[in-house]
Amino acid sequence: MKKGRFEAFSDGMFAIIITIMVLDIKAPHGNTFKDLLTQLPTIFCYLQSFWFVANYWSNHHHLVHCVEKVTGSILVANLNLLFFLSLIPFVTGWVSESNFAPEPVIVYAIALLIPGFAWTILQKIIEKHNPWTEKMKIAMKRQEMKAYISIVLYAAAIPVALFNTYISEALFVVVALVWVFPDKRIEEALSGV
Amino acid sequence: MKKGRFEAFSDGMFAIIITIMVLDIKAPHGNTFKDLLTQLPTIFCYLQSFWFVANYWSNHHHLVHCVEKVTGSILVANLNLLFFLSLIPFVTGWVSESNFAPEPVIVYAIALLIPGFAWTILQKIIEKHNPWTEKMKIAMKRQEMKAYISIVLYAAAIPVALFNTYISEALFVVVALVWVFPDKRIEEALSGV
Amino acid sequence: MKKGRFEAFSDGMFAIIITIMVLDIKAPHGNTFKDLLTQLPTIFCYLQSFWFVANYWSNHHHLVHCVEKVTGSILVANLNLLFFLSLIPFVTGWVSESNFAPEPVIVYAIALLIPGFAWTILQKIIEKHNPWTEKMKIAMKRQEMKAYISIVLYAAAIPVALFNTYISEALFVVVALVWVFPDKRIEEALSGV
Amino acid sequence: MKKGRFEAFSDGMFAIIITIMVLDIKAPHGNTFKDLLTQLPTIFCYLQSFWFVANYWSNHHHLVHCVEKVTGSILVANLNLLFFLSLIPFVTGWVSESNFAPEPVIVYAIALLIPGFAWTILQKIIEKHNPWTEKMKIAMKRQEMKAYISIVLYAAAIPVALFNTYISEALFVVVALVWVFPDKRIEEALSGV
Repeated sequence: MKKGRFEAFSDGMFAIIITIMVLDIKAPHGNTFKDLLTQLPTIFCYLQSFWFVANYWSNHHHLVHCVEKVTGSILVANLNLLFFLSLIPFVTGWVSESNFAPEPVIVYAIALLIPGFAWTILQKIIEKHNPWTEKMKIAMKRQEMKAYISIVLYAAAIPVALFNTYISEALFVVVALVWVFPDKRIEEALSGV
Repeated sequence: MKKGRFEAFSDGMFAIIITIMVLDIKAPHGNTFKDLLTQLPTIFCYLQSFWFVANYWSNHHHLVHCVEKVTGSILVANLNLLFFLSLIPFVTGWVSESNFAPEPVIVYAIALLIPGFAWTILQKIIEKHNPWTEKMKIAMKRQEMKAYISIVLYAAAIPVALFNTYISEALFVVVALVWVFPDKRIEEALSGV
Repeated sequence: MKKGRFEAFSDGMFAIIITIMVLDIKAPHGNTFKDLLTQLPTIFCYLQSFWFVANYWSNHHHLVHCVEKVTGSILVANLNLLFFLSLIPFVTGWVSESNFAPEPVIVYAIALLIPGFAWTILQKIIEKHNPWTEKMKIAMKRQEMKAYISIVLYAAAIPVALFNTYISEALFVVVALVWVFPDKRIEEALSGV
Repeated sequence: MKKGRFEAFSDGMFAIIITIMVLDIKAPHGNTFKDLLTQLPTIFCYLQSFWFVANYWSNHHHLVHCVEKVTGSILVANLNLLFFLSLIPFVTGWVSESNFAPEPVIVYAIALLIPGFAWTILQKIIEKHNPWTEKMKIAMKRQEMKAYISIVLYAAAIPVALFNTYISEALFVVVALVWVFPDKRIEEALSGV
């Protein structure tokens, strides 16, 4: 029951964060295809942030699945994660309005890095009170590797942005692809829970 | 349980996508009935997109009903569908601001077509892992016919928009009407699940 | 299960419609209490529409409680109701921006009347497939009286607005107060369901 | 069941109120880090209001946990609370746009105080119909102390704002910290329910 409301609230915030970004896509000023082309960077940024938040939602789903009792610390760590995720639409808007200028892209890379730390805190707290099965541990190990790759790529995107922000953007896309398909091993491990 | 969160998140996104369009209906600048009339095209566009997304929601409801286990691929195919649906408010806004100019209406027709492909992918993936009953298959057959009609009408709306965008709009209305009432056969087939 | 998603989607839309109106309350341009006073009409309009939609939500809650099977017609009638309710934020914004000009207030009165018809349709459809208990019938009778009073007051507000829109607004407040407390008899009748 | 919808609707509104504030964080006009700095006060205000509403949500969660039957008065008292909470984004926007001018900060302090009264009303009504266990009573006593501290600090922030609004802001932060971690005693008391 308590967990139900915890999930419902989180799902609500995930859904709103993901959808709010559409509001940043303004209708083009002219009425031609050419005018629409000017909106393409915005749509690309939205697509990227959409998958970023969607990946967090899908992993959140798996992580919370193992939780048996929602304690005060889990609540706070979860809100901490949601707070940093809720800043993504704002940073996405800046990147697209600046047309991929170096400094907004650097801030975007940082904004993508921070939820990773918030996630780690949430995971550690959940792990402490909800011991994982052996299977789950192995699955989580693989996920941790994905997480390390993401951190390295996001961090690399920061200096790269000073020379060419498109390469930075390409790195973000790579990370998104790494995460798109939820790990089968986690699904298997969870089905045993 | 897992399915519960999957549905809750989808429902949240459907509800937000549908309601976000209201934000595009700005209060008229003057204070007379005549000023309100200038907003009528916007309200008409909103109504049309409202039913378009609502029909997807109602069919989504039936489709997911048969799902027993939400796998990673279903998750991704579902997010893919929701992503393209979330672009509808933006395109709707463009059509209404352009006062039904040909190129925005063509883009709108394309934006209405794409979720159909995303839907087909989702349906195929669900079908693979969740074998349907005979009854369900018959019901789905009829729905497929509706889908073909929709594709033909949306596609027809594209060249037609070059001559008269109001005829294109009329075609969109026809498709909406085709879908408004969920198929009774599906309901019957589902009640046996 | 099916009913669960039906309610979740409706609740989502109710919550969004109600909250979207806050977006219309813009921060005052100056930094003094006097500047805030200029926003008071907006806040008043928001408060009024907030209770209007909240009353529909609370009654929706009771009405759907008796539904056993969500049919296609209930789905459509429900979406029809939600569509007209979703126009309330737009009309509320117009009234407050026009500073209670006669024509916006008349449109507002009409916008408050229409969901009443949409509600009646939904109720008739639900009633047909879900026979009510004797207790429920008596409770509903009382609610119907409330509905008639509302219709009369909203309708009266239309001609009155041509002379003094503040009297019209007062009539809207009266209706809101009539509905604020859900009928105890309905609660009792429902507890027996 | 009835309680489920009551919670779902409340959760939806909490999630929307909390997330709507992000819309107030506009992308900076320039493309440099310096331009981002101008947005820092807004982000700070958002953070503060985020935790304010989040604390209400988390306590709401505990309070409603003890409710057995959602009566009409609980419904109204709950909507009353949500209404005042829904004004927070608007006041937050004003404070940040005014760059912490005295009068907006005073209004903000008042807007933080009011939900406290709405909360007290809701709590009293729930208490009347749902007698609490001894454990719960002791836990609630401690929470009441927290509430008194909050009221004193918010009230103190009002005159202080006339001299230095930053001290007022610091007081708001103190209150947020007082509430961040849900009381363990409440969790224990509730686990016995």
